Amino acid sequence: MFRVVVLGVSLKFEGRDIVSVKDFSRKEIDYILKIAQAVEPIAAKGSDMLKGKILATLFFEPSTRTRLSFEAAMHKLGGSAIGFAEAEIASVKKGENLADTVRVVENYADVIALRHPLEGAARLASEFSKVPIINGGSGAEEHPTQAILDLYTILKEKGKIDGLKIALVGDLRYGRTVHSLAYALSMYNIELCLVAPESLKMRREVLETIKETIPVTIRTSLEKVISQVDVLYITRIQKERFPEPAEYAKVKGSYKINLETLKKAKKNLIILHPLPRTDEISAEVDNTSHARYFQQVWNGTVVRMAILALILGAIK
Amino acid sequence: MFRVVVLGVSLKFEGRDIVSVKDFSRKEIDYILKIAQAVEPIAAKGSDMLKGKILATLFFEPSTRTRLSFEAAMHKLGGSAIGFAEAEIASVKKGENLADTVRVVENYADVIALRHPLEGAARLASEFSKVPIINGGSGAEEHPTQAILDLYTILKEKGKIDGLKIALVGDLRYGRTVHSLAYALSMYNIELCLVAPESLKMRREVLETIKETIPVTIRTSLEKVISQVDVLYITRIQKERFPEPAEYAKVKGSYKINLETLKKAKKNLIILHPLPRTDEISAEVDNTSHARYFQQVWNGTVVRMAILALILGAIK
Amino acid sequence: MFRVVVLGVSLKFEGRDIVSVKDFSRKEIDYILKIAQAVEPIAAKGSDMLKGKILATLFFEPSTRTRLSFEAAMHKLGGSAIGFAEAEIASVKKGENLADTVRVVENYADVIALRHPLEGAARLASEFSKVPIINGGSGAEEHPTQAILDLYTILKEKGKIDGLKIALVGDLRYGRTVHSLAYALSMYNIELCLVAPESLKMRREVLETIKETIPVTIRTSLEKVISQVDVLYITRIQKERFPEPAEYAKVKGSYKINLETLKKAKKNLIILHPLPRTDEISAEVDNTSHARYFQQVWNGTVVRMAILALILGAIK
Repeated sequence: MFRVVVLGVSLKFEGRDIVSVKDFSRKEIDYILKIAQAVEPIAAKGSDMLKGKILATLFFEPSTRTRLSFEAAMHKLGGSAIGFAEAEIASVKKGENLADTVRVVENYADVIALRHPLEGAARLASEFSKVPIINGGSGAEEHPTQAILDLYTILKEKGKIDGLKIALVGDLRYGRTVHSLAYALSMYNIELCLVAPESLKMRREVLETIKETIPVTIRTSLEKVISQVDVLYITRIQKERFPEPAEYAKVKGSYKINLETLKKAKKNLIILHPLPRTDEISAEVDNTSHARYFQQVWNGTVVRMAILALILGAIK
Repeated sequence: MFRVVVLGVSLKFEGRDIVSVKDFSRKEIDYILKIAQAVEPIAAKGSDMLKGKILATLFFEPSTRTRLSFEAAMHKLGGSAIGFAEAEIASVKKGENLADTVRVVENYADVIALRHPLEGAARLASEFSKVPIINGGSGAEEHPTQAILDLYTILKEKGKIDGLKIALVGDLRYGRTVHSLAYALSMYNIELCLVAPESLKMRREVLETIKETIPVTIRTSLEKVISQVDVLYITRIQKERFPEPAEYAKVKGSYKINLETLKKAKKNLIILHPLPRTDEISAEVDNTSHARYFQQVWNGTVVRMAILALILGAIK
Repeated sequence: MFRVVVLGVSLKFEGRDIVSVKDFSRKEIDYILKIAQAVEPIAAKGSDMLKGKILATLFFEPSTRTRLSFEAAMHKLGGSAIGFAEAEIASVKKGENLADTVRVVENYADVIALRHPLEGAARLASEFSKVPIINGGSGAEEHPTQAILDLYTILKEKGKIDGLKIALVGDLRYGRTVHSLAYALSMYNIELCLVAPESLKMRREVLETIKETIPVTIRTSLEKVISQVDVLYITRIQKERFPEPAEYAKVKGSYKINLETLKKAKKNLIILHPLPRTDEISAEVDNTSHARYFQQVWNGTVVRMAILALILGAIK
């Protein structure tokens, strides 16, 4: 048993689903972040903590990045992984519903990471499953492990989350990562700035919830914002989320970060991106001290290791 | 070495192919079932029994369920798995024949689980392969590990197989699982009832073989049958097996199990289904004491663990 | 630490990319071949040499054979594997460039095996990656691990490479394996004969390079050549490499090895083929003493084990 001494805090994670960040208190999220810190050294050298355990990755929508991150996390803990990478090769083709798929796969695996094109899919799955469900992205709704790895990156890079000014930039309507991240950030004492074109502004239900606890400003232009923030989180405008191609064409390329736009930035600004990027961040930014989007990827594996170890009871 | 004391019985399984249930005697199948019972505790906690061994899953036809079950079984025994999930991504695309594919893959793996759309594919593969071939479904013909897990489920739930009245219901012509199961059941002292629409009745070669050893009645209506049987095994009518869509439309939805149809059932009736289901069994049946189709899935992994351990020589 | 005593030779492989055979000296290739000999016994029984290490197989083009060989090699050394088997399911679909994909995946894995349809892809990847890149085939250009396993097969079967007469037959223009093999063979004291139809003759840049160090004869007919050589390496004429289907039709089936053509062969001639084959080698040849193409497959796993162990520092 791997033991982490976290100042007397001990929370119950074993057997829990990770469907939405809204299911967790700040205290619980802080605990996950602390476990991630404790687990990080293992990420480089491997461990036998989850030996004999199996992760099923059920990806009804392709996502190389998230799927490989979960599988790498499982392997680094000594476990194994099974699964599928797209609906085409699943029994869905044969007309099976998600509840049945989950009640089948829970017999093969100790934990299921699910990505699905429909909102509510992960919640539904968690209601039928005997093993924990981790939401690996459901529709345009949520992507909780991404939000936690984003927090972990901010914490690692800035030493704190409270007190920061943070901008979320780009597609705030269809981008699921920013929904989960906004909910998560609203548990901290931060100032949030939302920058999006009119047609892609933050969903109302998210906005109303977060405004209850943190100050939120809304902008369509990035220009002034960039000089004021500590963290700039920019997302790809995802063609595949638009019902109408014409709507996509209008907003494509709205925000671009390059050396020119960064001239006004604070010296310690960090830039995050859930990746993949298209043209939002120029390659020339990659070598600046602002770029942290590839470190985010590493942190993703670390955070997923922490989550897997917690919900499978290997860390109490 | 894992040792099972089975009342002096010791049969040779190491290196054997699992192509058809007809290749096995009742004594041998009973032995596999006993090994499955012995192995079941390991299914929950994992083992190193097959450490260093590799399973190749060559699925020329998609089947999430069967493929994941084999891979989970292998991982639970400490082994690893490689393979492909559909012909599209295989070198078949480049015009390679099955014999060559097998003679290549036998160099990568210690055992091969094969699913193929053509009847006879598993037999052909076994003739060319130096490593054991497990038939994971070939055409509409056979699916032997499914039949053995079906037997295992009946044995676990009923405490015996001999003496039972068992109905096979649905597509008995194209459904490969019922062919293998009928052959397997014909080795036991049971009464079999076959219920199918005229166009989907049991293949003649199967019927003639099983009638030599067990009493078989043939019905088109499920109504009277349901009150008489101990085990009701129902299958999906598989659209993809029909040469003509019009033929499918005629028989689609022929049999449906719901609370109404179950009113006449014996109190201890158990309902099995190889899954995935479409509309043959209503969701309302899932919580009744009759439903055993999700337990079947678990049993599938257990039986495949037993088979892998036996043919790879980890259990003698 | 696994230690191989190789007569005082000790070369630096840890952390190196395997992009082209041209990046290696003969001394280095000989060293890989010696390590392969030392590692071969492990291929049958498994090892924990790379426990905790992860291989990512990024196959932007399908190749069951090469992908499974790398994964089997990794599993036999106690490591694990993650990845994708075709570009369709990769984030490429979302418009990501290769440099970003590599900078993401290096966070999940300790080594990356890459197959890509474009020439130069592996080299580009190696420039961006912090972890070693193994070229698993890039465009029609190179396939270095195939070349090394071909050398290993010749060495095992003939006891030497120097002094042999070797023919490369078939598609010498688009076939990437023959390019890598020609470069590799040009480091040894051999005589090379290139047999190809006019439209598929060896690329000029390869030919000019190898002619600097070894004698090369060029033929369009296989007839006379077959009686003179010790090793006949024949390749499939790959339809998918031809820009024009009409060009393919003209040369399809140019060379066929059967019992008749082998009548004139040397008694100890060995026939190699990178597989898959189509009709270049008749099935009747498989059981002759000349056939070595399935042994090549086994050797491929052994050589890839040696390479993985070397570049990950498990063997010094």
